[in-house]
Parts: sequence; C-alpha cells; structure tokens
Amino acid sequence: MKIDALSRMGRRTAPPPISWLMQTALSRPKLISLAAGFTDNPTLPVEMSRKVLNRVLHSPETGRPALQYGITAGETNLRQCTARHLQRLDQSSSSSSSSLERKSRTRMKNEDENDKIHSWERVMITGGSQQLLYMTLEALGDEGDIVLVEDPTYFVFLSILQSRGLRARGVRLERNGLDLGHLEAVLQQLKKTGELRRVKALYFIGYFQNPTGVTTSFEKKRGIVKLLKQFEAAAGHPIYLLEDAAYRELRFKGPDVKSALLVPGAMDRVIYTGTYSKPYAPGTRVGFGILPEPLFTAVQRIKGNHDFGTANLLQQLLAGALETGLYDQHVAKIEKRYGQKAQVMKQALARHFPPNVEIWESGGGLYFWARLPGNVPTGVKSKVFQTALKNDVLYVPGELCYADDPARKKPDHEMRLSFGSASEENIREGIKRLGEVLRKFLS
Amino acid sequence: MKIDALSRMGRRTAPPPISWLMQTALSRPKLISLAAGFTDNPTLPVEMSRKVLNRVLHSPETGRPALQYGITAGETNLRQCTARHLQRLDQSSSSSSSSLERKSRTRMKNEDENDKIHSWERVMITGGSQQLLYMTLEALGDEGDIVLVEDPTYFVFLSILQSRGLRARGVRLERNGLDLGHLEAVLQQLKKTGELRRVKALYFIGYFQNPTGVTTSFEKKRGIVKLLKQFEAAAGHPIYLLEDAAYRELRFKGPDVKSALLVPGAMDRVIYTGTYSKPYAPGTRVGFGILPEPLFTAVQRIKGNHDFGTANLLQQLLAGALETGLYDQHVAKIEKRYGQKAQVMKQALARHFPPNVEIWESGGGLYFWARLPGNVPTGVKSKVFQTALKNDVLYVPGELCYADDPARKKPDHEMRLSFGSASEENIREGIKRLGEVLRKFLS
Repeated sequence: MKIDALSRMGRRTAPPPISWLMQTALSRPKLISLAAGFTDNPTLPVEMSRKVLNRVLHSPETGRPALQYGITAGETNLRQCTARHLQRLDQSSSSSSSSLERKSRTRMKNEDENDKIHSWERVMITGGSQQLLYMTLEALGDEGDIVLVEDPTYFVFLSILQSRGLRARGVRLERNGLDLGHLEAVLQQLKKTGELRRVKALYFIGYFQNPTGVTTSFEKKRGIVKLLKQFEAAAGHPIYLLEDAAYRELRFKGPDVKSALLVPGAMDRVIYTGTYSKPYAPGTRVGFGILPEPLFTAVQRIKGNHDFGTANLLQQLLAGALETGLYDQHVAKIEKRYGQKAQVMKQALARHFPPNVEIWESGGGLYFWARLPGNVPTGVKSKVFQTALKNDVLYVPGELCYADDPARKKPDHEMRLSFGSASEENIREGIKRLGEVLRKFLS
Repeated sequence: MKIDALSRMGRRTAPPPISWLMQTALSRPKLISLAAGFTDNPTLPVEMSRKVLNRVLHSPETGRPALQYGITAGETNLRQCTARHLQRLDQSSSSSSSSLERKSRTRMKNEDENDKIHSWERVMITGGSQQLLYMTLEALGDEGDIVLVEDPTYFVFLSILQSRGLRARGVRLERNGLDLGHLEAVLQQLKKTGELRRVKALYFIGYFQNPTGVTTSFEKKRGIVKLLKQFEAAAGHPIYLLEDAAYRELRFKGPDVKSALLVPGAMDRVIYTGTYSKPYAPGTRVGFGILPEPLFTAVQRIKGNHDFGTANLLQQLLAGALETGLYDQHVAKIEKRYGQKAQVMKQALARHFPPNVEIWESGGGLYFWARLPGNVPTGVKSKVFQTALKNDVLYVPGELCYADDPARKKPDHEMRLSFGSASEENIREGIKRLGEVLRKFLS
C-alpha cells in the first residue's frame, strides 16, 4: 500500500531547515561552524551539577520526591524560585522613561503589582521554553490562524507554525525592536481584508534576538501592547503578546530591560517565556513561562496530555542551583565568557570582512547579524554559501529566518554568525575564511 | 472582552479526569489512596541514580555532552542500549505457539529479522512514553479520525483523543486480550457506515493493562494484525497497531510475552512504546518507542518542534544505569516488591471483599480490577464512591476508563485498585475500609 495514513500535520511538517546544515557539519571534520546555536562547551556546569545532584540525591527525603511523579505545572519550589528570579530581573532592569524620583514615589504600588504579575501560581515549568511555545500555539491557533512575527525571526518558531498549519505575517525589525509604523500598517491591512479575526498573537524575541541580536526597548513593548489592544475590538478577541526571553540572561553589555509583563495593563495579554537551558545547560532542558488566564489553564491541561509535567529530577537540579546561589555564579561566569567571545568575533569581523558589509552588534546572546550590500545572495544555493562550505566555514543563511509572507519578497542577503559554541581560535579562523569568500563576491 | 482567543483545541481540552481525585486526596490527610498510578516510593533508586550521575558528571569528557544539546531522536548510546534491551526482552519471552524444536530450527532467520525489527535506528527516545503517544496521534490523526481502543483503556490516552478532536471506538476486552470477534464486528460496522477510512490505529496496552491488568497473548496480537490488514484495502491506507508496553517490566509472575513487533509481517504496521519511567523512576521521565516509516520521520520532525530532543542528562542517566547492569538489578528488586504488594492486596481482597465481587488478578503492573455484581454503580457520584470517600479510601471508578462510544452504554460498576504507591499496611487497611463499604451496598 503506497498511500500513507498520516494526518495533514504528519504530512506537512517539514524537516528542520538547519538539519541539513548540521549534517553537513558532521561530514566535514575540518569545518568551522558559526551556524549552530549551541552554547559554549567548556563553561558547561559539570562540577556544579554534580554538586547539586549529590545534594538532592543525598537522602531519601529529597531524593525520592525528585524521582517520583509531580505536578503538571511544575514543582512548587521551582515555580517559586522562578517567580522570585523573574521579579528580581524585572526590578533591577531599567525602564528608560522612569526617573529615580518617580521610581521612589510609586515603589509601593509597583511592588504590589509586581507581586501579582510575577505570582508563582502564574508560572509554568516546561521542557525548555520550546515546549511552552509549542503548547501556547496549540492552545491559541487553529489551522489558518495568523501569528505576527518579527522579520526576521527564530526559524524553529516558523517550523512550528508551518507544522501546525498556522500562517505567519512578518513585521519589520528596527535596531531597537519592531517598526511600530509597519506593525500598524500590517494590522490595518489585515483588518481591511477581514483577516484580523484570525490574528491570535504577536511573537517577538525581546532580548538579543535570534537571529539579529536586537533588544526591544521598553517603549517599543509599550507601543506594541497599545497597538494590539487598539485592534482587539475589530479582531473580536484578545491578541496576545508572546515575549520570548530565551537569551535574556546571556547579557554582557548594557542594562537589562523590563519585560513586556511590566507594561501597564498588559498582565492579562502577555505570555512570557524563558529558559534555564541556555544560561545553565541545554542538556537539562528546563524552561518556564508566565501565562494569563484562560491560557494558563488550557496549556496546563495540554501539558498533562503531553507528559504530566517536566522531569522532577531536572526541576530539583535547577531549584537547587538557584537556591544555593550557584546558578547566579554560573551566569556571571558565562556572561564574561560570551562577552569575551563576542569581542573576538567583533575584532575578526573588523579585520576580515569587507567594510561594506553591515554588522549588527549585540550586548548579549550568541549572534552577530551581517547584511551584504547590493543584495548579494547568501542562501543555501548561493555562490557565497557554496564557496564558504568549500572553504570549510558554515553560517545560517538569513533567508531561513523569514516567514513565508506573500506580502513581501524574502530577503536573502544576510547571515547569522554565532560565537556560542566555536572556540576563540575557530571564531578568528572562521571569520577570516568567510571574509576571504566575501571579498571574492563583493567589489 | 469576554470572548477568548483560544483554538478549538484550547477550548475543548478537558481537565484530567483524576485531577479532582488527586486534589481530594491532598485535602484529606488520613485518606488512603488506592487510586494513584504512582510507583512504590521506598524502592525508588536514589542511591543508584546518584552513583550513575556521579559517573556521568565525573569528567568533562562525559559531563559536557550530557549538558549540551543532542540529537532529536535521542542519543545514540541510549538508542542502542534500548534496542538491545528490547531485543533481549523479545528473545527471552515465549510465544506459546512455538516449540523448542521450531525455535532452534528457525533461530538464525529469526535473529536476522529481530536485528531489523529492533534496529536502534528505529528507536526514538521521548519524554516518557506519554509524549510518544501524543506525537504519534499528532502524526496520524486529523480531527474526526477514529482510534480503536480497548474497552476499558488508559484514561489519559482518552484525554489526548478528546483534546485532539479524535474519536474513540471501544473493543471488548477478554482476560487474554481483545475480543477478536468484537473487533471484527466493529470494523465491519465502520466499513458499513463508510467510516473505515477515518480509522488510523488500534491502541492497546499489551502487558498488565491499565486498568484491568490483562496481558494480551501473542496469538491475540497475531489475530489483531491479521484483522487490521484485512480491512486496510477498504480503509484505503494502513491501520497501525499501537502497542503500549509501559508496564511490561513490572512483571512478577508468569513468562513474558513477545511484543506485536514479532508478529510476522507486522514490522511496518506496529508502533511499540515503552518507558524507563515506571520500572526505573517516574521523575526521570524517559520513554522510548520503535516506529516504522513514514511515521518515524514524521514524529521525529514533530519532536524537533516540541523540544529538539529529550534532556541529554536524563538520557545519560538511563544509559549509564543500563550499561552498568544497575538497571537490571533495580528491576529485579521492584519485581519482587510489587509481587509482594500484590500478594498483600490479594489476601486483603479475599478477606474483606464480598465474594460476589469479581476480581481480576494480574501477573504484573500496578492494578487489580474489581467488578461489582448487579451493576451497582461505582462512579464519582455513586453511593459507593461517596461512602468510600467518607471512610477515607479512594479508588479509580471504572467508568473513567471507558471511551465516549455511542455504540454502547458506558459500564459503571467497576473499580481500579492500585497497590503501586500505598504501603503494605495501607493496602490492608484501605481494602478493609473499602470492603466494609461494599458490604453495605451488596447483599
């Protein structure tokens, strides 16, 4: 029998766009990959994890609960640690519009509000923040529904949309977040075509964006919430703002920015997702989020069907690392490390890249974003990419990060350059090789 | 705005049927729960897990890969361990139709076939077998599609179907597996109504079934495969057999039975799911499965969107436990333990339950199944359940384990009694309390 029994989803789900890149990397042992979003290997907290796990598994009193079933939304201690952690991040971060004076005057009121916004009962623990993104889309999106995304955006998020039959509409990105004028134009256009009722959410990566490194200012967050609310009446339902903060703690330069949760009146519209995977260790795959109702309940039920809850043992590892302060020590260490590696890449780019390549530098995360002049293509089939591959250096072509949006041509002249997993030596050598390739094709 | 933006799935996903039972248990401190499917607490491998994790995290060489991203389908070492593990289970298990002589004559051929059937490249590692069940249904089922299930079956599987808009049709269960006559009648009926093309799979729990404790004989597995294949032409596509073997290794009596993978010609139709959670530790939440194409590829892509792959650290814990033989030691220990607890429950049932209650005893797993005479109801609102609750003892009402199937009235006179998590003392006391309640309502 040649016909298969797959569902529409089973049939349409495409292979991940970079699986081919990954395989290519494996088959060329001398290849330097600036493509992978892996984190730095030498700083992974091996010793620290051993210490914490020995503590958890030292006695039956703490060991047994860690090895038993738990609560679908996550273990209470980790949810409470996470709530405190987020509250601390949001309190120490700056909102550039607020002066010291105003801060002190409204402190009491704000702290009360923050307690509600960051209440541990709104926190859910998931298998990386990826699982939370997935389940949020399950709870919000029917086939044909629309999610607004940054142009460009995180390509695995685009894969989820594709798999689930959801449509993406791109909104232009500026150096400090979404182009609010373009967002308004897109919403107007969707209203005009009668598609606004299909718009369920806007997804953005608030900190050190993947792939561009852009951090969205708090003013922009405020502006986005205002615009979305403005169009809700025409949509006939809430339009959620989904803030992905996966890279927030990989910050080596500049002040932190408040999350969208802190935009006044946005508490019931913002879904905030974060992760311990990137700042601590991807192999632990523990993420978290803050969700408003009725989404929290819907996602919790869906998670019960997925897996009853994230593995307790990993939750206790993270709770232990947070409670003992070891987590903070580790984050301080990797901030320094990534800062150093970013510096190495920056210097190499200045030395080896043609001056007419526009470089977007970031104060955190894992990426530089490079834009070639005159629309010299960088895609998988381009001469630039193929020559780079022959010269044993790999990057992520920018075109993979753009939604299939009929409203515009997909830009294809950019590249994402990661300093996450490559060694300093390989960053220097990889950028040198890539610079040589670019000099051939850029005059 | 009162209207929500949830998807159909977000709106329809019901709360888990036993969440209310669980909460009730928490609010009555003296309550003895024979409801929870939790595993035995005192035998959880705390010391063993500490040992293995110390081994994994002892050096950067093994520690760093365990804390880094990995492969979506699972780490190669654990996939290989798992393939060998399953091959060993299927080789040592008996097919009651095969004599020693035939075994030796066909050994070479069978071993070659087994190598293919249990090839590690067909193995996928998931977040418990629950996640694999979920993703398999994503890959196979569109809204309105039908999955045949045992009557009764695992209630969380029914929750997944409900959430995803899939329909369940129940097939009667006998003491050694599905009633093949009824299966054929159901398939005929579906063919007659034109709904056969919506039937994507038959789901059954092959070993020590949840909730009844029934183990399906190999002959029945052979019979099921034969019937499903017979109706495939009319369906217009393959009908998969989804064998859930979650309880297989919790076996304390009688020989093991070969999995449906071993039914001749069934290799491309059987999806086999198993787990390390129940025999090792639920808090590690590592499951696995063997999938034929094109399902393997579809599910792998879907898993990439869910979480990129199950946490490496947990995979290395399980691989370490398997490689060192500690896993086998642990399974031997808990087999003995559950055997003992089952014996305690059996004796208590004999002593305290009215003789006209039919008890289904099992050679493994976590459950006894009790059927009351004269259709005395046992549901959440019944006098039996409410009185039991007042007397501080909890069971799972049988009705929760039946699909919403318009073709028959839902049976409501049964109860699932778990000896998994309760202590021996509480098993005795709980059954005594329940026996007293039953004596009130049964003459």
